[in-house]
Amino acid sequence: MTAPVEFWFDFSSGYAYFAALEIEALAARHGRAVLWRPYLLGVAFQATGARGLSNTPLKGDYARRDWARLARRKGVPFALPAVHPVATQAACRVFYWLDENLPDAAPGFARGVLDAHFVDGRDVTDADVLAGLAERQGAPPAAAARAADAPEMKQRLREVCDGAVERGIFGSPFFVVDDEPFWGWDRLPMLDDWLARGGW
Amino acid sequence: MTAPVEFWFDFSSGYAYFAALEIEALAARHGRAVLWRPYLLGVAFQATGARGLSNTPLKGDYARRDWARLARRKGVPFALPAVHPVATQAACRVFYWLDENLPDAAPGFARGVLDAHFVDGRDVTDADVLAGLAERQGAPPAAAARAADAPEMKQRLREVCDGAVERGIFGSPFFVVDDEPFWGWDRLPMLDDWLARGGW
Repeated sequence: MTAPVEFWFDFSSGYAYFAALEIEALAARHGRAVLWRPYLLGVAFQATGARGLSNTPLKGDYARRDWARLARRKGVPFALPAVHPVATQAACRVFYWLDENLPDAAPGFARGVLDAHFVDGRDVTDADVLAGLAERQGAPPAAAARAADAPEMKQRLREVCDGAVERGIFGSPFFVVDDEPFWGWDRLPMLDDWLARGGW
Repeated sequence: MTAPVEFWFDFSSGYAYFAALEIEALAARHGRAVLWRPYLLGVAFQATGARGLSNTPLKGDYARRDWARLARRKGVPFALPAVHPVATQAACRVFYWLDENLPDAAPGFARGVLDAHFVDGRDVTDADVLAGLAERQGAPPAAAARAADAPEMKQRLREVCDGAVERGIFGSPFFVVDDEPFWGWDRLPMLDDWLARGGW
């Protein structure tokens, strides 16, 4: 068995939305699974001293323009919500609760959260919204809503985030395959090439 | 006449070195010239609050690994100098002096500075080194050396940098074509596609 492609991202990252549309097909072309790993970019920012694109002068304007043209180019929907970026702790906690209890539902839930924020403009900080998205993947909604604020899921998320930063993961999207890191949506072609050649 | 592809970069930027190897051929495929525009990323950082990759935890390690594998992948030389990043004011001033007085020599000089730093490990903060690189492009070396510290070239560089930031330019490499911005070496394929289609 070959190792999966690790896909690290923050649910509030525009480039993660675009990467999530492509990563499964890309990995499948090379016989790889995808390990979806939402985390909190804010924890990585504490290590790098960076801050979010949308809150950075010049870069924020560029990113908004870039996301719009990516959507046009790809022919996919995209509508930056009025409230953006948003806190993604609750979405991450529900994700990891699914990941432990109903793992096949977790990637679909993650795609659902990204679509809810970047297409439908829904409030993905709301436990009920998250529970509804989990229910669509076959999970019991009341338990999913509880996970959004559960102490054990808070602890799990802290471990996930600290572990990511310890491994040098700092962006969104950020991919790791066979210990090789690739940062950014625009690195998907390089990741594809790396998988095709077995490295270079 | 179509507008040139503007190529903004800092002489101390690893990704600019790689972009400089590709940009002329890319633009030529679409009947475009390249307008080489070195500037000081530090001035953009004052606007964005960002700092250089090499001095940023996690990102610096990633960039060093990334540059090495890009060089392997492209089959081009690359050797990060012991002293990096370096101040690039003097190199920029000599560039703009050439740009005004011997414009055909300026792009070759810029390529020479990037090669001197990223291949040969030479001190591109030194006016005599810069004068030697200018001389290789047919410029009188004594006048080039004087330009490295000339008040009028300091003023010209300030205007170039302030003008870039006013236009929303903040990275290296950063391309502008027909008012459309593209940030990063890894956006060259998108820039190529944009030129081929006339936008999207």
